[in-house]
Amino acid sequence: MEIFNYETVKAKDAEGGAHNVKVRWLVTKDMGAPNFAMRLFEVEPDGYSPLHRHPWEHEVFILEGEGVVTDGKKATPIKPNDVVFTLPDEWHQFKNSGKQTLKFLCLIPHPKQ
Amino acid sequence: MEIFNYETVKAKDAEGGAHNVKVRWLVTKDMGAPNFAMRLFEVEPDGYSPLHRHPWEHEVFILEGEGVVTDGKKATPIKPNDVVFTLPDEWHQFKNSGKQTLKFLCLIPHPKQ
Repeated sequence: MEIFNYETVKAKDAEGGAHNVKVRWLVTKDMGAPNFAMRLFEVEPDGYSPLHRHPWEHEVFILEGEGVVTDGKKATPIKPNDVVFTLPDEWHQFKNSGKQTLKFLCLIPHPKQ
Repeated sequence: MEIFNYETVKAKDAEGGAHNVKVRWLVTKDMGAPNFAMRLFEVEPDGYSPLHRHPWEHEVFILEGEGVVTDGKKATPIKPNDVVFTLPDEWHQFKNSGKQTLKFLCLIPHPKQ
């Protein structure tokens, strides 16, 4: 069993077209997680993830801050205690729309071998 | 894409030996999640989950309240922003040790077919 505060895990710059977004990989395959990974994203007030899609789902829980999620057509506000579920191959983008850091958990399956 | 506040999902009594624990199934196979489920647990001040184990992992994030996690031998305090990862077949139990509801996310893989 592993128990730790998320801030003990190093925040790295998110890649792939994200702007002012950090990611902490909290639970990983290297730790022995058999199926899926838990990451925590921190999006600065002018930050956003890319509008993109991929063949795996996202299971997201909003922890702090304000933002919007868009599929490129419709933007929906998000706030703490909201759940966001994106299907495989669905377009999605997260943007901070507030003055504080937007923080959320985003869980994904491990890549298929 | 689905976006909703967790409180819009009905809280049900947790089964299997839990005491004063409610569970909300936030992201499920029925919603189209291919690999794993997101649940939110609410443990009342005198509540606890059973000391048990099973062949699947838990990926947990503490949202509110105070508690302890034990493997039956050692109890470790947990508080908001803590991550708990239990391996498959590892003994574990969550208990509220405070005066407020202990709330945490607990994600599990879908049962193997």
